[in-house]
Amino acid sequence: MEPFEKAASAIDTLYSRSPLPYGVTRILPTGTGDEKFWPSGFTLSGVNAGIKPQRKDLMLLLCERPSSTAAVFTTNLCCAAPVDLSKRHLAASSGLMRAIICNSGNANAATGAQGEADAARMAADTASAFGMRPEEVLVASTGVIGQRLPAEKIGAAIPSLKAASGSQKWRDAAEAIMTTDTFPKFFAVDVSLSGGPSRIAGFAKGSGMIRPDMATMLAFIGTDARIEPVLLQEHLAAANAVSFNAITVDGDTSTNDMAVVMSSGFGPSVERGTEDSRLFGDALRTVLTMLAQLIVVDGEGATKFVEIRIRGAANDEEAESAAMTVANSPLVKTAIHGEDANWGRIIAAVGRSGASFVQEELAVWFDGLPILKPGFDASFSEEEAKRVISQEAYTITVSLGQGPGEAVVWTCDLSKRYIEINGSYRS
Amino acid sequence: MEPFEKAASAIDTLYSRSPLPYGVTRILPTGTGDEKFWPSGFTLSGVNAGIKPQRKDLMLLLCERPSSTAAVFTTNLCCAAPVDLSKRHLAASSGLMRAIICNSGNANAATGAQGEADAARMAADTASAFGMRPEEVLVASTGVIGQRLPAEKIGAAIPSLKAASGSQKWRDAAEAIMTTDTFPKFFAVDVSLSGGPSRIAGFAKGSGMIRPDMATMLAFIGTDARIEPVLLQEHLAAANAVSFNAITVDGDTSTNDMAVVMSSGFGPSVERGTEDSRLFGDALRTVLTMLAQLIVVDGEGATKFVEIRIRGAANDEEAESAAMTVANSPLVKTAIHGEDANWGRIIAAVGRSGASFVQEELAVWFDGLPILKPGFDASFSEEEAKRVISQEAYTITVSLGQGPGEAVVWTCDLSKRYIEINGSYRS
Repeated sequence: MEPFEKAASAIDTLYSRSPLPYGVTRILPTGTGDEKFWPSGFTLSGVNAGIKPQRKDLMLLLCERPSSTAAVFTTNLCCAAPVDLSKRHLAASSGLMRAIICNSGNANAATGAQGEADAARMAADTASAFGMRPEEVLVASTGVIGQRLPAEKIGAAIPSLKAASGSQKWRDAAEAIMTTDTFPKFFAVDVSLSGGPSRIAGFAKGSGMIRPDMATMLAFIGTDARIEPVLLQEHLAAANAVSFNAITVDGDTSTNDMAVVMSSGFGPSVERGTEDSRLFGDALRTVLTMLAQLIVVDGEGATKFVEIRIRGAANDEEAESAAMTVANSPLVKTAIHGEDANWGRIIAAVGRSGASFVQEELAVWFDGLPILKPGFDASFSEEEAKRVISQEAYTITVSLGQGPGEAVVWTCDLSKRYIEINGSYRS
Repeated sequence: MEPFEKAASAIDTLYSRSPLPYGVTRILPTGTGDEKFWPSGFTLSGVNAGIKPQRKDLMLLLCERPSSTAAVFTTNLCCAAPVDLSKRHLAASSGLMRAIICNSGNANAATGAQGEADAARMAADTASAFGMRPEEVLVASTGVIGQRLPAEKIGAAIPSLKAASGSQKWRDAAEAIMTTDTFPKFFAVDVSLSGGPSRIAGFAKGSGMIRPDMATMLAFIGTDARIEPVLLQEHLAAANAVSFNAITVDGDTSTNDMAVVMSSGFGPSVERGTEDSRLFGDALRTVLTMLAQLIVVDGEGATKFVEIRIRGAANDEEAESAAMTVANSPLVKTAIHGEDANWGRIIAAVGRSGASFVQEELAVWFDGLPILKPGFDASFSEEEAKRVISQEAYTITVSLGQGPGEAVVWTCDLSKRYIEINGSYRS
């Protein structure tokens, strides 16, 4: 399958699993007539700057005017130079930004003072080409850690980036931030606000070193809504907690994680405490959730998408800890890969997660099929179980019988392909 | 290579890496004349009880008289029935035990009240065959979780277990507790105490679901020293903390982990607060460390043994957290597998570990070769690095430049073979 077909097929699979919130409509980019899918006020571009051979590796997202911008960043102490720089620029501009410049193929992480200078140069070159202040530019990088960024190549490519730019170039942009991703990840929705329809579109990249903590890999979202930066940040933080922070591919939190949302203000306004604000939050969460799930579908070597749902925990924190422990367990992930109904590994992972429970009250379902009933009754049909776990996507639910705590995490299987990809990524 | 040759070769590799403490002598079982290697006062046996096809699956370790016994157990909340039972028996007998009965092929975990009854039956059948109280018997199981233990097969096999027993049958015993292990793990040392030489021998099994927490997979150690249970427990806890608790194969803590040491009292006595006590502690730690390292060498799919050494952390806790995070990172483990000098992944793992540091002060060595010097100077020779990381065993040292905190953890690589083994273990 072509990468864009893969993307569309993955979106269809995920879309069929859960209904969108009331008032939110899916606007799936389908390959033709892109104009109608994207929020107005943005110009995008994706080109090859020579960091990687042939493939697009430089992305620009530009807003026509200073744009309310919110962002969340990695909590990894070894955070990359562009993360530090972007945090400073966002604060210096009080959340009113004009552009995001992003390269793939080199993370500009663990590069010290040289890395800081290179990230600053990316911002300065972009600012001078488009007539803005460097502080209005966010910088992001993704790729190999610990190698010097070829900032001169990036600077030299900015004229061609400008020449290739356009308001419909969201796909080019999504392609330009890919590393080991096998397809570009993008999604768009409409939401009906009192001032008229508003649009939110976004794109993201995975696909290894994925266990975001407070922020995520790279995700860039644009909306035409008119919304002040502080409220936008609140909506982003809330949506991020249940989307990018609820996925894991391999438990490794990246040094470069960043999710940014920019609002061009060409559309209807969103005021704090209104029904519009609630609807906008639902729509933003919908876009982030789809992007997050697409990252799991395209996790390195992944062949399965599995939702881990914990119920009945003492509280949400314990539920989250149990869900993440199950989702990261190599033994659970290899059993998922092998289509083995190995519920014992699931409850063993719950058992070491720190969540409290009484063994006899544990229950496990694969989709709607009871696998383990309380009192350790595991009298399920292997054939029916196989039918569920041979699907490309399914849900594992574990009930702890302790209280009202719940959590959902999305994960993938662990396959030989993951080893192949990561045994030789750097060289 | 034959399993016993593999064991001897692995011991040689590990032995060459670190000298034994003063006063402790290696007594390596080499294949002939076993008599001289084992502590006196114990009778062992290993037979096939029909739980697994053909291979030995039932082990007995018997002490001629009530024996000072210490044990540490898994902290997994889903702990298995034999773990609960053994804890109760140890308390009921004030640490004076007569026997350990252990089966492989079935973990008797997540088996509820039926599992408790089956574990109790194992103890009762053993006690009646050898004329002791059930409370003097420890029970251990390892294998698949969530299936009923064939306790009747075990009961029926006890006569043949008794018939096959002998004071030299340590190898048979080590074989009988294996699951996916590719070789039996055993080691023995002599230690010169003031009352004469004392001997400590032990055997253990891995090899998946290995990230012990407070206790470990299965390890059984016998010594002829005369030592009271409370002091023995203190020595075991101290040795366990820096041996079994310092290894990881896949980050999954098992439901059945257990390490037991029994002292027959046929040898010299060890009194609290003496030089003998210190020497005995060194010797016990030596045996546990070798068994722990053998488990890593034989980790599921492992082709590399790597020591992760963290220095210069703010304190030991942070050092341990950093070491364990590096040791469990799938990206680090696949890079080790691929012989890729990917130091960026190592410091990225340190960065998300919770340990504090300043990026510019990080330093990384592969064995003695500097890979990353402070200030992000990574000007190492790829050729020299390759020479280190193409070895079967080497050390990765990371210095955080914060304080006196140190930790050592042993881990292995993550290979396609791990996926093969675990994609279909249950079925």
